[in-house]
Amino acid sequence: MPHIALPKEYPGVRSLFMYSPDTAKPLNDLVQTLLHDPATSTLSPGERELIAAYTSSLNECKYCASTHGAIAKYQLGGNGDIVTAVINDPATAAISDKMKTLLKIAAKVQESGRSVTPQDIASAREQGATDKEIHDAVLIAATFCMFNRYVDGLATWAPDDPAVYDAIGKQRASEGYLTRPFKVPQS
Amino acid sequence: MPHIALPKEYPGVRSLFMYSPDTAKPLNDLVQTLLHDPATSTLSPGERELIAAYTSSLNECKYCASTHGAIAKYQLGGNGDIVTAVINDPATAAISDKMKTLLKIAAKVQESGRSVTPQDIASAREQGATDKEIHDAVLIAATFCMFNRYVDGLATWAPDDPAVYDAIGKQRASEGYLTRPFKVPQS
Repeated sequence: MPHIALPKEYPGVRSLFMYSPDTAKPLNDLVQTLLHDPATSTLSPGERELIAAYTSSLNECKYCASTHGAIAKYQLGGNGDIVTAVINDPATAAISDKMKTLLKIAAKVQESGRSVTPQDIASAREQGATDKEIHDAVLIAATFCMFNRYVDGLATWAPDDPAVYDAIGKQRASEGYLTRPFKVPQS
Repeated sequence: MPHIALPKEYPGVRSLFMYSPDTAKPLNDLVQTLLHDPATSTLSPGERELIAAYTSSLNECKYCASTHGAIAKYQLGGNGDIVTAVINDPATAAISDKMKTLLKIAAKVQESGRSVTPQDIASAREQGATDKEIHDAVLIAATFCMFNRYVDGLATWAPDDPAVYDAIGKQRASEGYLTRPFKVPQS
């Protein structure tokens, strides 16, 4: 049960967005530009969603890891195998070496910003990562350290049914973050 | 030295805002409504800045702890003793019992959203905290877990001179977050 009274037909962060529209607006604007807009990053939306899902998985945030894992799946063409592999171990997943170094930076950020070393950055550059891509990876990981804490710090509802996350993933991958919230039918 | 090439006349998060205007806009909008606007919370701007400074101190983020400590000082009337006391130990600081319970929740959020217990929430309610105040404390702490990682994950410049933070604090307390960035004179 959530720690505060939230609209019960919306899961996870969406219940908080309905509860607090003043903060929902900039938070949705942030993920729209950071994860979804094709023009704002040379990382693809699918790569950016993988970083979000992986960070959320490290924080053991069921709602965010499941939601962004499903969005990543649809942004990557509809096959969820890469998402599962990245969450299990980025080092052995079928992703680029550049993405492996960026996910390693994301894992450091998940611990603490102060854990990122010049060597982590040099490794990413050796694999072709640009300043902007390193920036984006750090900010995505940091942003999900916020969302994961917001969602779990208020004990929001995380549905158990994988089909719910799949439906959310399909919608967000297609529409982005500024459209209607996904409402889970109440039995 | 920062991990990526940032404009060197701006310290901390402000160098990142100049580097990435697309994400700067929603991030500034977020702190404006979350920390500064008097109408968006029944916690005073000074109380909200205390939560931001305390969380940043727990994350050992020098730039954010110093900046928001200075903003809190000016929002609380210009005396920095309460800020210092809160950062040292909220339990013995001259703040309300309600604020002590909200800072305890913030410390849990700093560890993980999953660390917040029903007992932490019940204690806050016993001291008069409303749902919205609990929400705001969780979101402020979560937000600074993001900013601290963004600022330190890219190794931004944190000035050593306390007078710089004091000047930033005075400006932000008076003007909010949507005005010009503070530029540190370069010798």
